[in-house]
Amino acid sequence: MVFHTTPSHASKYLFRQLFEKDSSTYTYLLADVSHPQKHAVLIDPVDKTVDRDLSLIHNLGLKLIYAVNTHVHADHVTGTGMLKSKVSGVISVISKASNAKADLLVESGDRIVVGDLVLEVLPTPGHTVGCVTYVTGDGPDQPQPRIAFTGDALLIRGCGRTDFQGGSSAELYKSVHSQIFSLPEETLVYPAHDYKGFTVSTVGEEKQYNPRLTKDKETFKSIMENLNLAYPKMIDVAVPANMVCGLQDPVPTTH
Amino acid sequence: MVFHTTPSHASKYLFRQLFEKDSSTYTYLLADVSHPQKHAVLIDPVDKTVDRDLSLIHNLGLKLIYAVNTHVHADHVTGTGMLKSKVSGVISVISKASNAKADLLVESGDRIVVGDLVLEVLPTPGHTVGCVTYVTGDGPDQPQPRIAFTGDALLIRGCGRTDFQGGSSAELYKSVHSQIFSLPEETLVYPAHDYKGFTVSTVGEEKQYNPRLTKDKETFKSIMENLNLAYPKMIDVAVPANMVCGLQDPVPTTH
Repeated sequence: MVFHTTPSHASKYLFRQLFEKDSSTYTYLLADVSHPQKHAVLIDPVDKTVDRDLSLIHNLGLKLIYAVNTHVHADHVTGTGMLKSKVSGVISVISKASNAKADLLVESGDRIVVGDLVLEVLPTPGHTVGCVTYVTGDGPDQPQPRIAFTGDALLIRGCGRTDFQGGSSAELYKSVHSQIFSLPEETLVYPAHDYKGFTVSTVGEEKQYNPRLTKDKETFKSIMENLNLAYPKMIDVAVPANMVCGLQDPVPTTH
Repeated sequence: MVFHTTPSHASKYLFRQLFEKDSSTYTYLLADVSHPQKHAVLIDPVDKTVDRDLSLIHNLGLKLIYAVNTHVHADHVTGTGMLKSKVSGVISVISKASNAKADLLVESGDRIVVGDLVLEVLPTPGHTVGCVTYVTGDGPDQPQPRIAFTGDALLIRGCGRTDFQGGSSAELYKSVHSQIFSLPEETLVYPAHDYKGFTVSTVGEEKQYNPRLTKDKETFKSIMENLNLAYPKMIDVAVPANMVCGLQDPVPTTH
């Protein structure tokens, strides 16, 4: 049993979890506050809450460097494009495998560096073809325990659906087991969504209690093929927008 | 500027923030996992999410000892009574000043002890006559930074209304300034609610950016007297129930 549940990094790193209620999306703010310019990154920002996030970043005296997405979301419009239009110099990031547009296209083994904070890129396709998990480094100067931002690949006691955007239940099973469940058990799991009011889990907890991913591969595939979920109500708006950071040329669609 | 934002207590203490979406209520689970029986406390449990909370407590191998309320809530029914009915030995806690029923009635200076974890009781009336803030101890074996569970006295960039349940804007102003703003600036502020998707703040941040409580007392009173808020829609159900831990004799009202 693993009981570490909050990242321990005292005064060097800042960590904030933020919530967007309509889509139950978590946005994460991380910064190295020991860095002279207090460089910061937002993971999975939402268009509706960009002003809230920028106000907090301003209050905390941070400098936003990166706006990062775990994948092309189908349930909300990313705030990445709006952040770029409001804060000069912000670099948008998404996976190369997503085929979406961004300033920086990452793939397995790449690292995003924010001050001394390192985010490693783990490919975790299956919910979409281009899903990645960002996990903090494992050096002594990195947050302890490590933090995994799993997007929709691994949710708390759940996982993302696999029936759109190049999704594959077999791929998702392989991704979670090979990339996430192989991390240390105390690694904190911070997903892109939660619908039941959980805020965090750990790799150890999900390996033991995830009702889908603790099953064998064939049972998992059967579960995922029989979810009978409704067509995603935002997908036809969100996916085209999110393929271009949430802002479609030439006219922005979100404001 | 204070940048500590997550409690650092590594493997000794467990901390989980949980959310109930309808009333935007945060419930907090704390435990001393170094204690042989892994004693735990829930702060501000909600009736609707009792089963979720108990499932998590079971998964984590904890033993729930206390179910604690910061005050008599008007916007949701507390889960305290249901927890008592489902888990033998759970001790309900509320302030003596609230005039509500509970197994343990606390007042200024009292301490709730959960394993080695200490919660000190600070009287913070003003939202209701019986509001208290629970703050972790300041010893070297306690979470660093300290954690203040402020209920509705101090919200993130806000505060609770003061027009019902013995509320008083003058009292609330005095409470926040004398009891909460006097804590170390890095103290984490975990409120009973947030409506904008913030999950945590710090004493230092609220002292600098709270749009109401950074004002002088007369301006604060004027702000609170002119909020023109609607009558609380749950108050006539929630308050009578919460005066008796959420379960009214002889017939439970919540299930």
